[in-house]
Amino acid sequence: MSKDQFKNEDLDSFKRNKNENAIEGRNPVLEAFRAGKPVDRLYVLDGCRDGAVLSIKREAVKAGTVIKYVDKERLDHMSETGHHQGVIAITAAYEYSTVEDIFDRAAEKGEDPFVIILDGIEDPHNLGAMIRTADQAGAHGIIIPKDRAVGLTASVARASAGAINFLPVAKVTNIARTIDELKEKGLWFVCAAMDGTVMYDLNLTGPIGLVIGNEGSGVSRLVREKCDMIASIPMKGEIDSLNASVACGVLAYEIVRRRLKG
Amino acid sequence: MSKDQFKNEDLDSFKRNKNENAIEGRNPVLEAFRAGKPVDRLYVLDGCRDGAVLSIKREAVKAGTVIKYVDKERLDHMSETGHHQGVIAITAAYEYSTVEDIFDRAAEKGEDPFVIILDGIEDPHNLGAMIRTADQAGAHGIIIPKDRAVGLTASVARASAGAINFLPVAKVTNIARTIDELKEKGLWFVCAAMDGTVMYDLNLTGPIGLVIGNEGSGVSRLVREKCDMIASIPMKGEIDSLNASVACGVLAYEIVRRRLKG
Repeated sequence: MSKDQFKNEDLDSFKRNKNENAIEGRNPVLEAFRAGKPVDRLYVLDGCRDGAVLSIKREAVKAGTVIKYVDKERLDHMSETGHHQGVIAITAAYEYSTVEDIFDRAAEKGEDPFVIILDGIEDPHNLGAMIRTADQAGAHGIIIPKDRAVGLTASVARASAGAINFLPVAKVTNIARTIDELKEKGLWFVCAAMDGTVMYDLNLTGPIGLVIGNEGSGVSRLVREKCDMIASIPMKGEIDSLNASVACGVLAYEIVRRRLKG
Repeated sequence: MSKDQFKNEDLDSFKRNKNENAIEGRNPVLEAFRAGKPVDRLYVLDGCRDGAVLSIKREAVKAGTVIKYVDKERLDHMSETGHHQGVIAITAAYEYSTVEDIFDRAAEKGEDPFVIILDGIEDPHNLGAMIRTADQAGAHGIIIPKDRAVGLTASVARASAGAINFLPVAKVTNIARTIDELKEKGLWFVCAAMDGTVMYDLNLTGPIGLVIGNEGSGVSRLVREKCDMIASIPMKGEIDSLNASVACGVLAYEIVRRRLKG
């Protein structure tokens, strides 16, 4: 793929995403919620108190959808049809699984659970690459937060090279609380951070949750405090970190190596 | 970064790249070559036999620049100014190093050379992430081919998170021939492929060259035949490969692990 072809792809993907994931206008959005369609995010015109919009907001709250208030210029820019009527819903391109599905998968395979928790990944290429990595490394599923993170969009699906169809991805409201619940099921948690213990010196065997933080800010303080171990990848370079999906791959395969050693 | 912000970024990057790397029109392109500016790729209107364009092509051949023949529609689409006059040159955003620079870096550090060879990476995000990984894993440089691969563009620089300023990246005409030359300097070569020996069972110590293939087609046959070892990453998933930059990270860190063990 030459450079300019890549640029065209970027533009195509920009246009494609608009078509694939957005539902615009009051009736279509309300119908989507009432039909139980998974909606990742609802954009509402800031200050709009119209009755129809209030009904949509009630449905969104019921469905646990994140609501974002934006100005008219932003909605107009997002709109494909030009008739958004103050509401645009971004639906998930793929259905989410539950945390239970992930544990069922581990049980079916007769393996110690291996879960990857992504604490706020924002780049669709990274999320897609991590879904692909999780599938290959034999993780049983991925858990992502409902807010401040990219969901299962069409770009993520493409970057996952199809792995999104096989690997359960669950979405939870509160990562820290989910970690507490999974600890009760016997999981140990390790998160990635620069100032941790070198990964080769940690005990990464048994039922495990690997936590990878946001591309810019890393693992959030609260989530980090819940982790049993903090792992660092040896860094010899002039800059201070790896790409998030590469870091996820390196740590996931350190866990694979330990599992293979038995 | 929410989903729609990402889409805007894609579009911004599309526009930015056009401005940053392209030189359009006969005189500006000819001047760029004569000034010794590093040109990654020259796009020429197919069938154009005008004297000025022939002079530009001669300069391009002298500089070792790859020439691509394209139709008018493609050139018009690439053009920012609308005045390309049948030629658009894509310059490198960053200067290339030489293979000697990479060996000098290893010698300065008193380390066994560790080189990463990328046999035809096309995605700028991947190349950027690999430059970042190479820097962190303590590789002394990256070697890329002149043709059929993305060069050091502005997108690559951004994805490298600044590592492009520290890590030497050399561009060679023929990867297979370069491997032969480096074998004479004592390097052993390992390439990544699905049907290789599991990486944990290989001897990855000493002066080493890690070869990663193209995102779609993998390592080319000729290059693969030159390699001393073929390493596979254990794959437990339903799909058949990892993202190229993740695979590069996992293998590079297996080499790091062996180096740390001494």
